[in-house]
Amino acid sequence: MKTAVIGSGTWGMALARLLFDNGHEVKVWSAIESELKELREKRTHKNLPGIIFDEGIVFEGNLEKAMENADICVLSVPSIFTRATAKKMAPFYKEDQIIVNVAKGIEENTLEILTEQILDEIKNANVAVLSGPSHAEEVVRLLPTTCVAGAKDMETAKLIQSTFMSPVFRVYTSTDMLGIELGGSLKNVIALAAGISDGLGYGDNAKAALITRGIVEISRLGIAMGANIETFYGLSGIGDLIVTCASKHSRNRKAGMLMGQGMSMDEAMKEVAMVVEGVYSAKAAKALANKYNICMPIVDEVNAVLFENKDPKQAVDALMLRDKAVEKIGI
Amino acid sequence: MKTAVIGSGTWGMALARLLFDNGHEVKVWSAIESELKELREKRTHKNLPGIIFDEGIVFEGNLEKAMENADICVLSVPSIFTRATAKKMAPFYKEDQIIVNVAKGIEENTLEILTEQILDEIKNANVAVLSGPSHAEEVVRLLPTTCVAGAKDMETAKLIQSTFMSPVFRVYTSTDMLGIELGGSLKNVIALAAGISDGLGYGDNAKAALITRGIVEISRLGIAMGANIETFYGLSGIGDLIVTCASKHSRNRKAGMLMGQGMSMDEAMKEVAMVVEGVYSAKAAKALANKYNICMPIVDEVNAVLFENKDPKQAVDALMLRDKAVEKIGI
Repeated sequence: MKTAVIGSGTWGMALARLLFDNGHEVKVWSAIESELKELREKRTHKNLPGIIFDEGIVFEGNLEKAMENADICVLSVPSIFTRATAKKMAPFYKEDQIIVNVAKGIEENTLEILTEQILDEIKNANVAVLSGPSHAEEVVRLLPTTCVAGAKDMETAKLIQSTFMSPVFRVYTSTDMLGIELGGSLKNVIALAAGISDGLGYGDNAKAALITRGIVEISRLGIAMGANIETFYGLSGIGDLIVTCASKHSRNRKAGMLMGQGMSMDEAMKEVAMVVEGVYSAKAAKALANKYNICMPIVDEVNAVLFENKDPKQAVDALMLRDKAVEKIGI
Repeated sequence: MKTAVIGSGTWGMALARLLFDNGHEVKVWSAIESELKELREKRTHKNLPGIIFDEGIVFEGNLEKAMENADICVLSVPSIFTRATAKKMAPFYKEDQIIVNVAKGIEENTLEILTEQILDEIKNANVAVLSGPSHAEEVVRLLPTTCVAGAKDMETAKLIQSTFMSPVFRVYTSTDMLGIELGGSLKNVIALAAGISDGLGYGDNAKAALITRGIVEISRLGIAMGANIETFYGLSGIGDLIVTCASKHSRNRKAGMLMGQGMSMDEAMKEVAMVVEGVYSAKAAKALANKYNICMPIVDEVNAVLFENKDPKQAVDALMLRDKAVEKIGI
């Protein structure tokens, strides 16, 4: 297969290595000249120390050339650049190409998931997704990882599965793209809550409760939007949520932790010094919860901490003190 | 309410504190004279350093006296002693008493869960359970925790909920006792697998995959046995599994880690120097999988490592290399 990886962040580069090791042709596109220079000359990436990329991987600054003849285009730019990048790709897209989106996010003003944004910009494109508990740092080091390939039809999902599957990268298939994308986008809100809990000095019991109840409210929303409950209890749902809430590297968890320790949202974001996706997802989640009339208590409390200066301890305690309830997953 | 806590391990003592703080009368029974002496005289417990138990909690070596007039008897002895303790309790049990079992396990020769064993010994007893992601060390320090109270009828479940619920201990209700007990018992097999993965140097991606796929196979078995799928995706299922697989204190995870690093099962158990429940649960899980004709690949591989000297790396890699699959949760 001929593949193009659009975006040379850590996840794009981990997938480029995987695809190359699987015997495919790989061209990686980047808009950043200094990054291209490092990748071409040193075969290294500043955020993946110790990894040398094979000479066979081609690095390309010209989007048209990168996409030319590619059977699969992996779109791995950060979610805030997805729409703009899709727009740039549109003139070069050919009917039989598959675009596999691997970023996660919901657009704040339109409330659209990423594949919807891509379809806005590239009409009738064959758009698919790949998602799961997959730190790039581990995948690029060939540590065992599982993901789900989602597409509108099972045939496309299976093609993506065959392309990515390797002895260290197990790929499942699904046709529930909406569920996969919602799980991936909304996990960051729960990761903020888990971080706040950690920052308050609460323990593993509280964090496990937030993860367990967090996926319940995400799936409640997802079902109302037309997604399949199974997806939320799969690798791209609870699996990815577990990895994110446990990780010391998650920016969302870290930002939450700093707020739990007493920083304001602005101070925490300054300290983390990178985009904290959960802050945007929290707003979008609340808007979606209102739109579909779904009860999402963790999302509500995270929003109150972020945007209404609610004391983090009061927020987490509010979740613990709610009325007595029957355990109801919504299955 | 008048309560008796039968068994003064860490979990029994954490619940004794919780019940006392909630305003109930609490008598704690122990068969171990040295433990009673320390609890009575110093008000401390050797495995809960820093905690002083209130003078109002009564410690009792006489089981009849401990159970006398108790509305609720919390049965918190280790699972291997549950049947024998229930047998001792039988002559003193009165019809209107509720026995809340808080241990977890499956008997190897009968394949019975603990409440079935209790009912064998105390006919027609009103037996219930309390389970969830709840390290005793955190509960006794008043860190926020959630659990599920399970009983045959919702009325009993609600009574248990009211008795245990506090500002730091949120209790949900359920009538699926079988699901609650199976989740609690079988999690230790998955924790062994997670430990093996950690011991091999695999990362968070692999562990999240084992947790996610682990609860899938547990719930497959549970559904075949008549339990409710919701329970496995609740606090006593995935919630407790997350805590156990993440914990540095879990004996099961530690034993698995040592095996992943090259020790035999016997060496690992000697090193851990405490009962590794997962070793017994693994056998029971395999027997149940055979009985109900359920595919449980993680259970199979853990058994092969434990009892057939299978190389741990080959076992985990076998799970990653299985045939291509559709993601199917079984919901």
